[in-house]
Amino acid sequence: MLKPGDTIGILGGGQLARMMALAAAPLGLKCHIFAPEGDNPAFDVAAARTIASYEDVAALETFARSVSVVTYEFENVPARTAEILSALVEVLPNPRALETTQDRYIEKSFIRDLGLAVPDFVPVDSLESLTAAVAQLGRPSVLKTRRFGYDGKGQAMIKSETDLADAWSVIGQSPAILEQFIPFEREVSVVAARNTVGAVVTYDVAENRHTHHILAETTLPAHISAETERAAKEAASRIGAALAYVGVFAVEFFVVGSGENEQLLVNEIAPRVHNSGHWTLGGAETSQFEQHIRAIASWPLGSAKRLGRIEMRNLIGADSDQWLDFVTEPGLHVHLYGKAENRAGRKMGHLTRVLP
Amino acid sequence: MLKPGDTIGILGGGQLARMMALAAAPLGLKCHIFAPEGDNPAFDVAAARTIASYEDVAALETFARSVSVVTYEFENVPARTAEILSALVEVLPNPRALETTQDRYIEKSFIRDLGLAVPDFVPVDSLESLTAAVAQLGRPSVLKTRRFGYDGKGQAMIKSETDLADAWSVIGQSPAILEQFIPFEREVSVVAARNTVGAVVTYDVAENRHTHHILAETTLPAHISAETERAAKEAASRIGAALAYVGVFAVEFFVVGSGENEQLLVNEIAPRVHNSGHWTLGGAETSQFEQHIRAIASWPLGSAKRLGRIEMRNLIGADSDQWLDFVTEPGLHVHLYGKAENRAGRKMGHLTRVLP
Repeated sequence: MLKPGDTIGILGGGQLARMMALAAAPLGLKCHIFAPEGDNPAFDVAAARTIASYEDVAALETFARSVSVVTYEFENVPARTAEILSALVEVLPNPRALETTQDRYIEKSFIRDLGLAVPDFVPVDSLESLTAAVAQLGRPSVLKTRRFGYDGKGQAMIKSETDLADAWSVIGQSPAILEQFIPFEREVSVVAARNTVGAVVTYDVAENRHTHHILAETTLPAHISAETERAAKEAASRIGAALAYVGVFAVEFFVVGSGENEQLLVNEIAPRVHNSGHWTLGGAETSQFEQHIRAIASWPLGSAKRLGRIEMRNLIGADSDQWLDFVTEPGLHVHLYGKAENRAGRKMGHLTRVLP
Repeated sequence: MLKPGDTIGILGGGQLARMMALAAAPLGLKCHIFAPEGDNPAFDVAAARTIASYEDVAALETFARSVSVVTYEFENVPARTAEILSALVEVLPNPRALETTQDRYIEKSFIRDLGLAVPDFVPVDSLESLTAAVAQLGRPSVLKTRRFGYDGKGQAMIKSETDLADAWSVIGQSPAILEQFIPFEREVSVVAARNTVGAVVTYDVAENRHTHHILAETTLPAHISAETERAAKEAASRIGAALAYVGVFAVEFFVVGSGENEQLLVNEIAPRVHNSGHWTLGGAETSQFEQHIRAIASWPLGSAKRLGRIEMRNLIGADSDQWLDFVTEPGLHVHLYGKAENRAGRKMGHLTRVLP
């Protein structure tokens, strides 16, 4: 169990690490951020920083010895990095969560094996196997690289007119899966926390709207039945338990059908604090960031109670130019990430409205 | 007007600076902390630090050139320090607020000249003038140094049996005032913010209980009439306007009499965020720390709306050993300051309960 004064190591220097560090401070915990050179807004709110590559063994070892636990803000932590750190200090969530979620084929197989519904999928490792997979799942379907995909990167739609060789090139001829295309009613997610003694807290289900594959807006409550809401939270609990997970994670779902036929398909698991949980800053009794810190510190979890109807909007690129309007609106929770440049597609901040 | 990405300079590295820095970050503003060597918990959450004496001209000038505005967490900023900084960068609250509040005689004269009630007071600069002052105000009365008093330091009670030469020694034979002793019903305070265009926001009146001259507990609403509540807020507004103040400040009052005879006497002004406003973190729509940052950034102020009945308790010295109990209590807002040692009398953190 960590105690006030102890230091948490965080891999990654972006906005998620920054919001974790801001949540750790009022609990009396310090943060040490490890990140490669670049724009690292988490550095501005942390007690210590290491600028080094995730392959730099000496830097990783020095970092591991300076902290009481290591966590991370992104799922693509190299396996070797996690291994080097784990030899010296506890890494939470445990590296198994990384292995399972870094590879879409392993991830979807794991979820299906838990008895949870997922879109049909088939592994693809060549143009020939892609051709066979498309014959099996039909068109439209979606080709996705097994690794390093996020915000729509590493994906290609297979439409009626798509040339399969082109699609195979678009994703870089990397090991992939072909996935059934799901004409969903809506996308929802559950953010959950699990601590070292297996206690689980789930936030209410969030409904998400994406633009160009990037989360644009999250609203709560989601437009789903109470039954579906329960099922989503139950699925998250089962996934957390099966991974012996410690920390905050998110499960994204497609909602298909409606009324009595409403059904959930798991889309993916994010082994970290999640953009669809940013509303919890100001919109829930305990934010997902504090919850994550409590979990990895082996502390009791906080209440996930929602404080009202929620509208969370991401500020992407030039959206953040209107910051003065945002800070002027009474009662609006504005969170800016302190990034140096508002390049197109870059997450610059978010806004949360908590409505009665 | 500051814009996201700009840097605020803060003199002082304690918990008040720390909570200001934590409030600045979500607004996209960076902080640079200037403090002498020592335990400086604000360093753990700031983008930049300077460790130097407040008399180090070269360090002050470098600091001033690296920031867009300078503020401070304590009222005893040396006049020469403020002067050196003011020549290079805006200092807010303006140095006049420091001059007025650093000297009890000037402070009380200023308040009285505004037409606000204060306990009777007489300047004292020798044993002879002390003797004359006691003859004028009677016993009991309170001898207080004009400068550098806080948390009861620099004070001596003049009781019926007190030897005046002893009392004069106790306070170090420093320039002082003798003040009428006020057998108050209760102590209350108003935290207020004023921005660069003269807009004022006042938080609800807080009732304060001190132990050994250190704030122990703050509760809201205060046990005072609606009329007295209005009068306290009005007094704070007048003080802010008269000082052309920019930032957050607190006004402490004694409440004397009760019922129709309830009356306020101003005790002192604190030209900074204030311990009796810590409840606003979690207990008000906008915390006093965010409010201060907004004011000195020339941004619109936030809402000071209180979110429920409030109980704020300071954690002094070994109180903080029970941190695990505190973080286990559902819904309790725990704020620990990350100080290395919990020496007796030291403010280690605070707890806020927001009740329906």
